[in-house]
Amino acid sequence: MSDVKVVVVGGGVIGLACAWRVAQRLDADVTLLDPSPGDGASAVAAGMLAPLTEAHPTEHPLLRLSLTAARRYPDFIADVETASGEDPGYATAGTLAVALDADDRAELDVLAGHLADAGLAAERLTGRECRRLEPALTPDIRGGLRVDGDRSVDNRRLVRALRRAALNAGVRLLAERAVAVDQTGARVEGARVEGRTVPADYVIVAAGCWSGSLHPSLDGLVRPVQGEILRLRVRPGAVPLGRTVRATVQGYPVYLVPRADGELVIGATQREAGYDTAVTAGGAYALLRDARAVVPGIDEYELVEVRAGLRPGSRDNAPLIGPVGPGLIAATGHHRNGILLAGVTADAVTALIAGGELPEYARAADPRRFVGEVAR
Amino acid sequence: MSDVKVVVVGGGVIGLACAWRVAQRLDADVTLLDPSPGDGASAVAAGMLAPLTEAHPTEHPLLRLSLTAARRYPDFIADVETASGEDPGYATAGTLAVALDADDRAELDVLAGHLADAGLAAERLTGRECRRLEPALTPDIRGGLRVDGDRSVDNRRLVRALRRAALNAGVRLLAERAVAVDQTGARVEGARVEGRTVPADYVIVAAGCWSGSLHPSLDGLVRPVQGEILRLRVRPGAVPLGRTVRATVQGYPVYLVPRADGELVIGATQREAGYDTAVTAGGAYALLRDARAVVPGIDEYELVEVRAGLRPGSRDNAPLIGPVGPGLIAATGHHRNGILLAGVTADAVTALIAGGELPEYARAADPRRFVGEVAR
Repeated sequence: MSDVKVVVVGGGVIGLACAWRVAQRLDADVTLLDPSPGDGASAVAAGMLAPLTEAHPTEHPLLRLSLTAARRYPDFIADVETASGEDPGYATAGTLAVALDADDRAELDVLAGHLADAGLAAERLTGRECRRLEPALTPDIRGGLRVDGDRSVDNRRLVRALRRAALNAGVRLLAERAVAVDQTGARVEGARVEGRTVPADYVIVAAGCWSGSLHPSLDGLVRPVQGEILRLRVRPGAVPLGRTVRATVQGYPVYLVPRADGELVIGATQREAGYDTAVTAGGAYALLRDARAVVPGIDEYELVEVRAGLRPGSRDNAPLIGPVGPGLIAATGHHRNGILLAGVTADAVTALIAGGELPEYARAADPRRFVGEVAR
Repeated sequence: MSDVKVVVVGGGVIGLACAWRVAQRLDADVTLLDPSPGDGASAVAAGMLAPLTEAHPTEHPLLRLSLTAARRYPDFIADVETASGEDPGYATAGTLAVALDADDRAELDVLAGHLADAGLAAERLTGRECRRLEPALTPDIRGGLRVDGDRSVDNRRLVRALRRAALNAGVRLLAERAVAVDQTGARVEGARVEGRTVPADYVIVAAGCWSGSLHPSLDGLVRPVQGEILRLRVRPGAVPLGRTVRATVQGYPVYLVPRADGELVIGATQREAGYDTAVTAGGAYALLRDARAVVPGIDEYELVEVRAGLRPGSRDNAPLIGPVGPGLIAATGHHRNGILLAGVTADAVTALIAGGELPEYARAADPRRFVGEVAR
C-alpha cells in the first residue's frame, strides 16, 4: 500500500502509535503533523495499565477493549522496543490497592469481584501484609488488594520510543499544526496546515481534546478534562515504593506509580475547566495531602514537576476509534486510558485501513455511535 | 579611583549592588564574577522589606542596620530605577500580620511593642477589620496588626535592574566561577578563575553560602540554610491580596507577598540540609497547607514555581560586611535579609574602600567579630 497516503493529525501516544503501525504494517506513505509531539496529555499521565482498577462499573462497554489492550501489552511493548531500540520503561511489579477504613475495604471487595468476573487474579491482604509488601505505607492501612497482573509503563519514555519507531518505519514528522481536514465532496483530501494542504487518502485525527475543531463531523464530540499530576523523585534515605499503590482518601482517588529510575508519579485530579492547563495550588495541595496520607515518607522525596494536561473526553467517556467520514478516521477521546489503549487503537486503525472493517474488539469505541453510518 | 581594581565574587543581589555602587560612586575598575548571576538565594526570596516583622528579638544587634536599610530603601530603589531604566517592582502597600488564635494574638502584642520601641507605626485590628482590609482572608482570623511602613520589592526584578545598573556603570560581568581569592603575602592579588587570576586591589566576596570556600579566613563562617518558596499567580475570579500577609500556623510562620503583576510569593521553609537545593514534597505541602489556612482562595491560584534556595547563614545569623584581610572584603551571610540589606551593604562596602572605615551603622555586621583585627 505504498501508494496510499495517510496523514495523522496529532503526535501524542495515540497518533504516534497509529502512524508507526500504519507505516510498519501497510508500508503506506505516512505523515504526522504536530508542532510539539508528545507534549499534550501523553506527557501528563502516570502510565498505569490497569484495565480494571482504573475502570468504573459504568464503563463496562469498554471492558473488552481494555482487556484486549492489557493482554496485548507485552507484545506491543516488545514490538516498540525492537522497532525503536529504546526502553519504554515497562514495569511488571503489579498494583496494591489499599483501604484506609471500612468503606474502602468494602470497595476493595467490589473490585475483587469485578476482577474475578474478568478472570483476573487478585489477592486480599491485611493491613500488616500490605506493609510487609510495601514498608513505605502508613500504619493506618486497614487492608489491601494485590493485583500482580496490573502493569505500568513510563509514558514519556513510551512516547520517545514510539517517535523513534515511527521515524524508523519511514513516517515523516512535520512540526506543523493542522487546522482542518480538507475534503473534496464527501471524501477527505488532506490536512490543512498554514499555507497549504498535506494531501492524504486517509486522515487519522488523533488530536486529543482539540480533535473537534478539525472537521464538522467531530465538532462537539470531544471535550478537555483537565488532570494534574505530580512527579517526584526518591532521595537517598527515603523509602521507595516497589509497585503502584492506589487508595481513596476521604472520597478522592489517588495513585502513586514508581519507576525503576526512582521517579514517582502521583495523580490525578480531574476537572472540567475548558482548555486551561494552569496547575492550581489547590490541585497540587490535594494530591500531596492524599498521597502523604497513604505514603507519609513522600515528604522526603524531591518534588520535580507539577503539571496539568487535557485529557480528551467523549460524550460517554469511551474513545472514538473508527470511521467518521470517507477517508476520515478518528483515534481520540481516550480520556484516562490513552496509554493503555495506544496499541489496540493503532491495531484497529491499521486493520480498518487495510480491510475496511473495524475489528470486533474495538466496536464499543466506534464513532458511528455519534455520527451515524458513514461511507468509506 | 579609576586605577583601583575591584573584583566582586558573586552576582546575587548583594554582589550586584556592591559592584554597581563601587563603580558608580568611586569610578573604580570593577569586574563581577558569576557563571549565573541572580540564580542563587536572590531568586528564591519573597522580597519583604520588614525590619521588624521579619526580625527575631535575639537578632537585636542587627536592628540598627535593618532600620537604616528600611529608611534608605526608597532612595535606593529610586537610584536603581534611574541608573537602570528598569522597574524593580517596589510595593508600598504594607503588611498585615494576622492571628489565628489567642497565642498568636499575644505574639502580635509583643511585635507591636517592638515596633513602638523602634518608633514604627502599627495598628491593632480585629478579625473583622482584617477581613475588611483583605477580603481573601479566612474567617478564622482572630485579629491583626497593620504595619503600613513595611515594604516589599520584586526580588527578581530588582536583580535584573541591578544587573543593568551595574553594566551601565561600567562593571564587567564575567560568566566565570571564582574558585579562590589569590594573595601575595598578606595582601590579595585577585580572584582565581579557571586558567587564570583576575587581578584586583580589592576582592569583595559576595558568594553567599559558598563564600567560605574562597579564602581560609572565611572558611566555616557561612553555612547554607535551605529555604523553599512557592510562586503563584492570581487567576480570573480568584480574590487577590492587596498587601503582604503574615501568620503563624500551628507554630510555623508563613507569609504571602503579592506583586502588582498578579504574582503571589509564599514562603518559606527553613532547613539545614547542606548544599541540597532539591525541593521536597513535604516542604511544598507544608507551605500550601499553611498558606491556604490563612487565605483559602489560593486554591484557585495557578501554581507557577516551587523552588529551593540556599540562604547564607553566619555563626550568629548576622551578616558579614567588612574587612577580612588586607584587600579582602566580605559581603555575605545575609541569611533571610539579603534583599533588605543590599543597599546598605553596598553603601558600607563602598565607604570602606573609599575611606578605610566601616560606617557606624554596619558595625554589628563587622566580620572582625569572627576573624579578629586585620590590616587594610
